[in-house]
Amino acid sequence: MGSNTEFLKRMSLNQITTEQLNLEEAVQACTKAEVPWISLWRHKIEEIGLKQSKKLVKDAGLQVSSLCRGGMFPAATKTLRKKSLDENRRAVEEAAELGTDVLVLVCGSSSEHDIEACRGWVNEGIEELVPFAASHGVKLGIEPLHPMYAADRSVVVTLGEAMSLAEKYAPDQVGVVVDVFHVWWDSELYQQIERAEGRILGFHVSDWNVPITDTFKARKLMGDGVIDIPRIRAAVEKAGYQGPIEVEIMNEDLWNMAGDEVLATIKDRFVHYV
Amino acid sequence: MGSNTEFLKRMSLNQITTEQLNLEEAVQACTKAEVPWISLWRHKIEEIGLKQSKKLVKDAGLQVSSLCRGGMFPAATKTLRKKSLDENRRAVEEAAELGTDVLVLVCGSSSEHDIEACRGWVNEGIEELVPFAASHGVKLGIEPLHPMYAADRSVVVTLGEAMSLAEKYAPDQVGVVVDVFHVWWDSELYQQIERAEGRILGFHVSDWNVPITDTFKARKLMGDGVIDIPRIRAAVEKAGYQGPIEVEIMNEDLWNMAGDEVLATIKDRFVHYV
Repeated sequence: MGSNTEFLKRMSLNQITTEQLNLEEAVQACTKAEVPWISLWRHKIEEIGLKQSKKLVKDAGLQVSSLCRGGMFPAATKTLRKKSLDENRRAVEEAAELGTDVLVLVCGSSSEHDIEACRGWVNEGIEELVPFAASHGVKLGIEPLHPMYAADRSVVVTLGEAMSLAEKYAPDQVGVVVDVFHVWWDSELYQQIERAEGRILGFHVSDWNVPITDTFKARKLMGDGVIDIPRIRAAVEKAGYQGPIEVEIMNEDLWNMAGDEVLATIKDRFVHYV
Repeated sequence: MGSNTEFLKRMSLNQITTEQLNLEEAVQACTKAEVPWISLWRHKIEEIGLKQSKKLVKDAGLQVSSLCRGGMFPAATKTLRKKSLDENRRAVEEAAELGTDVLVLVCGSSSEHDIEACRGWVNEGIEELVPFAASHGVKLGIEPLHPMYAADRSVVVTLGEAMSLAEKYAPDQVGVVVDVFHVWWDSELYQQIERAEGRILGFHVSDWNVPITDTFKARKLMGDGVIDIPRIRAAVEKAGYQGPIEVEIMNEDLWNMAGDEVLATIKDRFVHYV
């Protein structure tokens, strides 16, 4: 019980897990459940403004594990790519303002363009964003997404690819985010986690199970799937990551629950299956 | 037009594309559409028996590009794995009897077991099957599946992994099957195709596009998605593969069409987008 209490100090509510709540409700639910960390999503911040968001989080004594998200670099025209970069700069500023040093990057894709072209735009986008982020003390956390998102959400689909992008920069500027849902299938997973030593900026948990009927809302609660989460956590910790662990589950059932019930459920799963 | 006619001589109907037809109807549709190749599925053969299946194909003058499928090695107990191996031996015998030298392997997975354990069973299963297949003149074509199938259909999810398994054996015993739907997202794709020189036993085409609402029936017609099929085909041909190209599309819309309409549609897409 003591060790559970200790372990729960690392739990962070990734706000998308409670998509049904606004930020105020999510903060209240965390406070009530004694969850000390939260990962904020920008569309939730936008609803009430940055200032009010910051106040809510600060007043509740919550720590912000990361801001979701920057990225989405690929776009058809130079004008659109510049627009995306401006949006990323705003995300950096928000992260800094909210007191987190990690901006998660979901790098983007385009179903209208070749994957090679998209990879090039991602590369360029990160290159342009790094100095700005660094000057704000914000690290870019490249999150490789599962390959089933390669046409719509991210052309960066393995930890190896994310590391190859990150290694072009200093470890305090660009790192990677390891989400078990996205990487569990990869036969190179453990060697890439080793390679990522000193660059892991976040660790996200959920679970994978079949059938997948909606790619975005496909995630299951930890324990309801095939992923060996404790093994991946051990590897991530061996690679030096001891920070907050975000519970990030896009799942219709969770979105239909009361917030307090969601928090109770994920806390229970967290201590038993993470 | 002349070159189209020439190119169409390489087109093979993978029978799952016309799941609504029995084998007799599929053979008739091929004959009518002058499609010279067919890839047979075992559940269709079972409906009318091996002898009758062989006769139908032979009488129509069709060539069999491959038999789908062997594999599915992972299982919880030794008894079940032995059963799976027996089934694979029957598949080898059927392939030989039907006049194809390629048995496609969908290697299998298990949502009840760790991916590492499953990988071990796949490795063992292939090892045990190879001598039997070789003695029947049948090559095993390991088909890497998209990582979204890692929990239910195959723990072999990249061409690199398939090649690492295949390279343990002689090139005339074990090779790989390249299906664009499964491999298009892989940043190592072209280097792995190069590595596969002399081991490519099949090339399958369809397309990928979002949204994916059913992982099994997710495939689109060539031209309706993001995959650069001609580029992959060029790489596969450069690596020495000049054999039949299977059109393999699990797609509800195609399954609701008349057989002749399906054949006309995929022929048209084949000449324009493959």
